[in-house]
Order: sequence, then C-alpha cells, then structure tokens
Amino acid sequence: MLIDTGDTAWMLVAGMLVLLMIPALGLFESGLLRKKNVVSILSQIIFGLALLSVMWFVFGYSLSFGPSQDGMIGNLDNAFIKGIPWDEPLEGMTIPGVLFVKFQMMFACITPLLLSGTIAERMKFKSFIIFISVWSALIYYPLVHWIWGGGWLAELGVVDFAGGIVIHTSVGMAALAAAIVLGQRRGFGPAINIPHSIPIAVLGASLLWLGWFGLNAGSALTSGALPANIALVTHLASSVSALIWVGFSWMRTGKPSIVAGINGAIAGLAGITPASGFVSVEHAFVIAIAIGIFSYGGVVLIRDKLKIDDALDVSSVHGIAGIVGALAIGIFASAAIGGVDGWLYGNPDQLWIQAVGIGVAAVLGFGGTWLILQVMKRTIGIRVDPEVEDMGLDLAEHGEAAYADEEEFRLTPDDYLQKQSKEK
Amino acid sequence: MLIDTGDTAWMLVAGMLVLLMIPALGLFESGLLRKKNVVSILSQIIFGLALLSVMWFVFGYSLSFGPSQDGMIGNLDNAFIKGIPWDEPLEGMTIPGVLFVKFQMMFACITPLLLSGTIAERMKFKSFIIFISVWSALIYYPLVHWIWGGGWLAELGVVDFAGGIVIHTSVGMAALAAAIVLGQRRGFGPAINIPHSIPIAVLGASLLWLGWFGLNAGSALTSGALPANIALVTHLASSVSALIWVGFSWMRTGKPSIVAGINGAIAGLAGITPASGFVSVEHAFVIAIAIGIFSYGGVVLIRDKLKIDDALDVSSVHGIAGIVGALAIGIFASAAIGGVDGWLYGNPDQLWIQAVGIGVAAVLGFGGTWLILQVMKRTIGIRVDPEVEDMGLDLAEHGEAAYADEEEFRLTPDDYLQKQSKEK
Amino acid sequence: MLIDTGDTAWMLVAGMLVLLMIPALGLFESGLLRKKNVVSILSQIIFGLALLSVMWFVFGYSLSFGPSQDGMIGNLDNAFIKGIPWDEPLEGMTIPGVLFVKFQMMFACITPLLLSGTIAERMKFKSFIIFISVWSALIYYPLVHWIWGGGWLAELGVVDFAGGIVIHTSVGMAALAAAIVLGQRRGFGPAINIPHSIPIAVLGASLLWLGWFGLNAGSALTSGALPANIALVTHLASSVSALIWVGFSWMRTGKPSIVAGINGAIAGLAGITPASGFVSVEHAFVIAIAIGIFSYGGVVLIRDKLKIDDALDVSSVHGIAGIVGALAIGIFASAAIGGVDGWLYGNPDQLWIQAVGIGVAAVLGFGGTWLILQVMKRTIGIRVDPEVEDMGLDLAEHGEAAYADEEEFRLTPDDYLQKQSKEK
Repeated sequence: MLIDTGDTAWMLVAGMLVLLMIPALGLFESGLLRKKNVVSILSQIIFGLALLSVMWFVFGYSLSFGPSQDGMIGNLDNAFIKGIPWDEPLEGMTIPGVLFVKFQMMFACITPLLLSGTIAERMKFKSFIIFISVWSALIYYPLVHWIWGGGWLAELGVVDFAGGIVIHTSVGMAALAAAIVLGQRRGFGPAINIPHSIPIAVLGASLLWLGWFGLNAGSALTSGALPANIALVTHLASSVSALIWVGFSWMRTGKPSIVAGINGAIAGLAGITPASGFVSVEHAFVIAIAIGIFSYGGVVLIRDKLKIDDALDVSSVHGIAGIVGALAIGIFASAAIGGVDGWLYGNPDQLWIQAVGIGVAAVLGFGGTWLILQVMKRTIGIRVDPEVEDMGLDLAEHGEAAYADEEEFRLTPDDYLQKQSKEK
Repeated sequence: MLIDTGDTAWMLVAGMLVLLMIPALGLFESGLLRKKNVVSILSQIIFGLALLSVMWFVFGYSLSFGPSQDGMIGNLDNAFIKGIPWDEPLEGMTIPGVLFVKFQMMFACITPLLLSGTIAERMKFKSFIIFISVWSALIYYPLVHWIWGGGWLAELGVVDFAGGIVIHTSVGMAALAAAIVLGQRRGFGPAINIPHSIPIAVLGASLLWLGWFGLNAGSALTSGALPANIALVTHLASSVSALIWVGFSWMRTGKPSIVAGINGAIAGLAGITPASGFVSVEHAFVIAIAIGIFSYGGVVLIRDKLKIDDALDVSSVHGIAGIVGALAIGIFASAAIGGVDGWLYGNPDQLWIQAVGIGVAAVLGFGGTWLILQVMKRTIGIRVDPEVEDMGLDLAEHGEAAYADEEEFRLTPDDYLQKQSKEK
Repeated sequence: MLIDTGDTAWMLVAGMLVLLMIPALGLFESGLLRKKNVVSILSQIIFGLALLSVMWFVFGYSLSFGPSQDGMIGNLDNAFIKGIPWDEPLEGMTIPGVLFVKFQMMFACITPLLLSGTIAERMKFKSFIIFISVWSALIYYPLVHWIWGGGWLAELGVVDFAGGIVIHTSVGMAALAAAIVLGQRRGFGPAINIPHSIPIAVLGASLLWLGWFGLNAGSALTSGALPANIALVTHLASSVSALIWVGFSWMRTGKPSIVAGINGAIAGLAGITPASGFVSVEHAFVIAIAIGIFSYGGVVLIRDKLKIDDALDVSSVHGIAGIVGALAIGIFASAAIGGVDGWLYGNPDQLWIQAVGIGVAAVLGFGGTWLILQVMKRTIGIRVDPEVEDMGLDLAEHGEAAYADEEEFRLTPDDYLQKQSKEK
C-alpha cells in the first residue's frame, strides 16, 4: 500500500500524544507523592524515557517485531532499525515504516515506567534503571512479540487492541510482585499518602487522559472511522469510571475526593484500552461500569485489606482495570468493528482465549518481576537505607530538592498590599 | 460524502484540543484563586467533565442535534447515540458520525464549566453539580439546537461559527446572574484576588490558548483552507487583545501585569470565536482591538464600579468579548470565506439578525440562570457556611488540601548547600 | 499544486506544537530560576509572544519571505499578509498560504524569546521588549530571508532544515554577547542557580520536547515519509543527549541530576534541528552523541571556567548544539532524504558551505546583539537597580508575586489528619 497523508498526519500526532503520557505520568505520580521524593520519580521517568528509547532503537524493536523465531521472539535483523523503510509502509500499513517504530517506541517507554508508581519513595535510582531495562528485555519485548508481533498467543487468537494484556496486565501483576518484594514504605498508612500537590497531580492526570487518545485511537494505525469510534469509546469509559470512583469515595468518606476522580479516570482509560478497537460505544459504557467497580474494589482489597504497599495502586488502576477490559473483549467484541466477535456475537470461545492471554501475561509479569527483583535484592540491593527514605530520595540520591526558596525575599500578602498601596 | 482521512485526522486532534481546554480552565482558575479553594475548583472541573460527558451521551446530543420538534428542541431518537454511524459521515460531512458527537461533547462539557470561574470559593459542590446539569438541559441544549441544530434562530439567519452566542453570550450573562444571586465572597476586594500561583495560572491560560485552535478551527469540521485561515485569525486576535490588556494595566497601575496579559489573551480568543470562520485576517485584527477594549472595560465596570463578584470576570472575558465578536460578524463577514456577508459586503441586515441571536441568548442565559439559582437557593441552598468559606472549601467540602508538606524534612537552601559542599 | 487535507491537518497541528513551545519555554525557565523572578520571565514570554506575533503580521513576514531585494531582504509587498492566499497554497506547497505564515510566525516568536533565558533576573522589562523587537527586525528577519527566503546564503547552498543556523546559532551567539554586556547577576555562583521548582521545569522541558516535533517535522511542510523520519530522528537525538548529560553529571558530582537530564534533552533537540530533515536515523544517533558532548562541555567552559552569566546556558544548549548539528549536515546529509548530500555521500564542499552559513549567523548574532545592547545601555538602560535585583523583579517590575498564601488558613498535615479522624 501507499503512504496516506491523512493517516500519517494522525499517526504523527498519536505518537506525540503517547510521548506526552510519559512526563504526564511523572507529574501525576509526583503530585500524589511526598515533596521529598519528587525529583526521584521525575528522574526515573526522564532518564527511563531516554534509556528505553535507545534500547528500543538498538535491539528492542527487533526482538519485538523482527522476524519471528518460532513465535517466541524476534531475531536481530532489525537491530538499529536496519531494514525498516522511512519512505515506504510496512506490510499492510499506510504510514512510513519508521513511524510505526516511533509509535511503538513510546509504548516500550511508558510500560515499564508505570512501575515507578509502585516502587516510589524507596527504590534506589540505579536499581530502578537496571530493573526496567531487564524487565523490558525479559518480559515486555517477548510479550509484545507473542501478541502483537505475530507470536504464539496471536496464533492462539488472543487479541489486545492497545495494551490491556501486553501493558496493563503484565505491569499490574509486576506491580504486585514488586510491592511485595520491596516491602512497605516506612510509616505506611494514610499519613504518607497525602498528595504534596494536587494541582500537579491533576495536571498529570489530565495530560494522561489527553495522551491516551494517542495510545488507543493511534493503535488503529490509520485515520478514519475506527480511531473516531475509539476516541468516543475511550472518553466515555474514562468519564464513567471517574464518576464511579468519586461516587464510592463520597459514600465511604462523606466527601467527594479529587484523588478518586483522577484515579478513576485513569482506571477507565487503562481498562478500556484492550477493548477500545473492538466494541461499540454502548458496550463501552457497560464495560466501563465494570472497570470502575472492580478497580476501585482492587484498591480497597490490596491496599486497605492486604496492606500491600503498591504506592500509587498500579495493580488496581492498571492491572485489574486492564484485565476487566481484556476479558470484556471476549464478550462484547464485534467483528464489524475490529474483526473479532465475542460471546454476544456468537463466539463464546473468545472469552477463554482472552483468559489464556491474560493468564500468561499475569504469570510472566508477576513471576518474572519476582525473580528479577529477588536476584537484584541479593546482589546490588534494591532499597535505599532507612535514613535516606526518611530524608527523602531527592536530596540523598540526586542532590536536588524539588522546591527551593529564599525565604528572606518572600513577602506575605499583607506586606504586598501595603507596598502596592504606598506606590499608588 | 465519504470519510476523508485528512479531515478526520484534524478533527480527531481538534476534539482532543477542546478536551485539553477543560483541565486547562481548571488550572487557569485555580492558579488565580486562593490556595484554600484549589481542590474545590478542580473537583468541579473533573467531576463536571465526567458527568456532562455522560449526559451528552445519554440524552444531550439527541436534544441538541436530534430530529427537530418545530425548531425548538431535538427529540430522543439519538439518545445513547443510537442511529449515529461510526463508519459513515453524517449528512454533508466528511468525518465519521461519532466524531461529530465527540467533538460537540467537548463543547457541552466546557460551556457550563466556564461558570466555575464565577461562583468560585463559595458555592457548595453538590449544588454546583446540580446547577450545571440543569443549566445544560434547560439552557445549553436548547440554544445549541436553535442555532447549530437547525432550530428557529438558524432559520432566522443567525450564525455563530464556534460559540460566541451559544457559548460565550449565554455563559457571560449567566455569570452575571449567578454572581448577583450568590452575592460577594466574604472580604470581597483586591486582597482576595491575589493569585495563589501565577505559574499554574499561566500554564492553564497557555493550554487554553492552544486548545482554542481545536474549538475554532475544529468547528470547520474539515481540514484545508478554512481551518488554516481560522488558526491565523484566532492567534492574531488573542495577541492583539493581550497587548491591549497589558497596555491598559500598565497605564492604570504603572506596571505591566501578567494576569492582565493572560486574561486579555483569553478575551481575544473568546471574542473572535463566533467570527473566526467568517472573516479575513485583516478584519480579525480590527475586531480584536474592539474585543480587547470592551472586555477590559467590562471588568472595570462590573467588578470595580458595580462591585459584582464575578470571581474571575467570566461576564467580561467571555460575555462581553463574545458579544463583540458575534456582532462583528454582522459587519465583517464575507461570503467568500464563510458563506455569509455582513454590512461591509452589502448585507447590513446581518447585523440586526446577529443582535437578535445575542439578545435571545442573553435573556435566556441571564433569566434562566437567575431562575434556576433562586429555586435552588430556596430549596437545597447554594452557598457554603461562612466558616467553611473562611477555612476554604478544599478541606471542608473535599477533605483534601491542595498542597501538603512534611515540614520536618524540608531543608532551607543554606542547609542544602552546606550538605552538598560537605559531600564533595 | 492543490491543498491536501492530510498535509494541512499535520501542519495545523505542527503550528500549534510550536506555539506550545513558547509557554513551555517560560515554564522551563521559570522553574529553573528563583521564586522572585517568575512573573518577570513569564511576562516576557507572554507579552513577547503577543507582540512578536503582531510584528510578524504587520511587517515581519514580508521582510522575511516577501519579494527579495537583491537577496538581502524582502520588501513590504506582503505587509499585513496582503497577497497571501488563504484558500490556495504558495508556490510549491500543498497547504494554504496563511498556514505557512502562521507556522513561521511561531518561529519568529520563539527565536528572540530564547534570549529570556540569558538575561533573566536582571534586565528591565521595558528594555527586554525593545531589545527583542529590534533584534527581530535587524537580525532575525534578515537571517530568515538569507537562508529560508531565498536570499544570498541560500544561493550559496547553505541549508538549515528547521533552524540550527537561523535560530540556534544566531541566538546562541546573541546570548553570549548579551551575557557579557549585561554582566553577572549579583551573587553569581551555584547558590543562585538552585531551581525554585523542579516539577515546573520538568513540565516545561517535557512540553518543549513535545512541541519540538512541530518545529522539526513541521518544517517538512507536508505529511508523509519525511516528517515521519524526522520524528524518529528528533526523538532519538533528544534521548541520546539526555543520557550523555545525566552521565556526565553523575560522574562529576556522584549523583544523577534531573536538571542535567532536561537540559541534555533540549540540547539534543536544538542540535538535531538543522539536520533533522537531511539525515538517516543511524546518522542522527552519531550526531546526537557529538551534540551531547559538546553542549555539555560548553556549559563547563562558559559558565564554570569563563564565569559568563548566561543564566540558563542558552549559548551552549542552543548555540553550541545548533552549530554541531548544522555542521553535521555537511558530513551526513543524504540527497535521498532531503535533497542535499554531505561529505559521506561524496560532497565534501557542503561542510564548508555550512561553515560559512554558521559563521555569518554567529557574527551577525554576536555583533548585532552587542551593538544593540550597547546603544540601549547608553540610552534607556538595560539593567534593573541592585535593590530591585535583590528584591526580585516580580514585585518591583510587575507588582505581582508568583506565589501567595494566606498563612492563617494553612493546616499542617497533623492538623489535617486530626481533623479528618475527628470527622469520621
């Protein structure tokens, strides 16, 4: 096929929107964390973005989408993007080959970085960097190959439109393993979960909401009817889930919580991701209700009941939400929209096929993460010293404070007004 | 007509840009307000966005754009988006039906939420939510139908490219009514109008400026010449109005004000909105001068002279600006650009037709809002208790503070440098 | 040629992305500066954006791209955008004429505003505004004409895809001159280089990263293969340079610095700008390594060794980076990609041609800026009084503080939690 200017215009933008999600994630997370660990999380995000981008260029793309070795992993034929045309589409596409590489590069960056929300406020910077590099190579690249690269799960019939299994199930289960291996933060409890800056958290969440249209509607790889349907489906799911989370928070505490609102929106986005290209708007509405309820329930179970310190609830907001959405494909998918039918359209088997895909990603995500972190724990160590944790990772690990002030020059509003009136 | 990939690519993005305006509005507003009411305004915005999106899906779209009942209101044939094709355009369009629904959904979200700037720092959260829901159903959906949905004002010949009448006149006059019914904030005066965070206000204003291209140039519903002209027209109007506002602030206080700069830019954007698809760049330049002067004058009149506490000057920045732009269509519109001629092009009647449209929207916006709020005031109440207002709505209504700190771990710059130098 | 909807869709977005870079620059800069000069820098950016936009409309475009007077400067035929079609492309393009004007308008705004990073915290607002206006007219518009407007450097064969010579060389050398003429800030040294808000700096840098795709890939003026390649090239360069900067900071101080990370990313973006439309992804990888090393070395030389107070290192991050990239064209350019061959493809002369272009821009940027500022210094003055510098430019020059608080209502986390538990 030929390159289409409209398709390429949309995919240029879609790739940028997914890029935007990465700093947005950092802002969202750092706003919800304590002031003393803001540089830490932003460093993980920015350095991680740069490193994972280069890894994808050097060998990640080739392992994920290169010629398949028995459906298990790509070979290194496309290392350094060799053989990927910049002025022609890959097979079956209408956008330049390099643009597909760039689009998927953003996925390969954000996926491991989601784990920064779990290990926040206590993992060594160096260890985090090693962790996400190894995690990419051993867990993410294979999983991409199995489902999106034409590997064995794709041959089984498992589908995942924009990453409910590949991204959210694997990350969600990895989060659970990481939280358990790392252990609770010192002083774990409500007191350390007070966001240091709600405006920054809301800003981050809003840019995630925006960027998610790139992730979901961009996964269509074309402009036209499919991404348009996905945009509406995605927005509606986010809205429904946000309402449910605020509603629950209102019922439980007597006050509507903004933190619940933004987490609910993100759960809705994560949850609808795998199904977004397969379902109608009406069905997305129903799926979103399930996503909202189960993901909120997950937080209550994992954080409040089990006392597992997944700092920003990645296991629920991404994991449980993603699993609900990936299963929902098996029920609501319509071949008229995305080429695959679910139970409602006479293909009950799809539900079990989806469950297999989810199971594989969950086992790989949880087990692989557990193994990687146990090995690291016994060798280079994964957790900062208690004094570092108390003082904050920003000064201890980075020598930078998120906020600085020269107090002597700060005026109070009264001084300020006095000054102003004198001048008039 | 067929779906065009280029048109759809642009409209996918345009819808996202209008979405971005909604949190941008929240950031802009919260930056300009006091620290103790930041969660309040952001909650109104995020929850409002989710709720109004669902309302639009369930019945709002259908009332606004569904089959007309004598030009007065749409029926419920398109409730739950039933009958709107995802893979075909609506009549006369080149984008998928659902994308038009999504694009207009964003308008239906941001319009009522503009009122959060008026009622800030003193309205109950629950009452605000009920208010904007009722306001949407009784004022916004009908007005959309009358002008954009082919209703009676459209048949009269009233035009409004992207919302100067439908959005800014109705909201501006509603702001006036709401400010009067609610009454002044406690301690109304310059002291409570000191922005708590100018960086956040500037960020919000900048993202509004960016997103406004989606609103205006997106309203072309196609890519190509028209949205390109609109983009230049829109940017120029914003720049001119910003310069005028800063100039006035400089003359009045002896210092150029950044708050004036961003408010002026937004007034320019709001003002050019209705005319943006009908006028040439040169004429937009002239119109923008009028917008800047009248909207700045509006603030002086309404806030400084009449002492009406429209907290963030919605009545001037949106209302007066929008009215100037909507009237300007009657003078400067050129049929070569947008299909309608104004006075300069030999059609003086258009000015009076525009005035009728503005008058209807103003009466409906002011009168309808007055009625809704008077009924609410006498039943569930609309204003928080004085103690709540003093303490701030964030803690009282949401149990969340915008900013939190663990003071004991905060270092002063001196400590920090000492620490750094010791380490070397 | 006809207007293409896909090309226009992309270019509508690209222009918006460059617009986004302008407030992003303001946020990036103000985050890295001291709290007392935040309104100052944001005012320069917002007012400058508005003023430079109007200047471009009135005469800037015409001087830059209007009919050439012997290759030296355009005439005023296109003043007020007269003669630029809104519904037809300019020669050789597929987008509406006004869209090219709008796209280049954003370049004309951001280029002089980059200098705000150099003169920060000590230049009078009024003088800055005059400075950038004169700088635009005497330096930027001619340089644009010489290289992009078909002037004498273009005829020599100098190429510059998106602004390594026109923008970054001229601005970088201007920064050096401005820093020398203005002199060091009071108390120059590490203590005054502590960022007041790293989240805001990271946000600004991230939005710059995002917006840069508009600058680079937008300079293709079409959708399709070229902008796709540019997007990958641009992102990779940014990532590589960020890694290098963090690596150097880690080696020098023992801790990985987030400030180094974001500056490194921006140096990578600035550096690859001129080459982005001429080189392959593999070569961009190599170029980016050189950009990272030389730009980091520039900071060590200019700030640490020569003690020149270029406040935010514009001379290195933009100037040196841009020079490396503009020279690299002479080595790595491939006619198959951008129509020009470099040394590696059998055209060694291109390297010397590029060097001439860089030399001209450097001399004009440094010398012109030196002259303008010396004249201003001797007439209206350029630097604020020492007391104003100590107190901060925000209150003194603008009468506005970046952050305000009503201390009496601020609760500590302990109060907050107590309050919360009592309520339950």
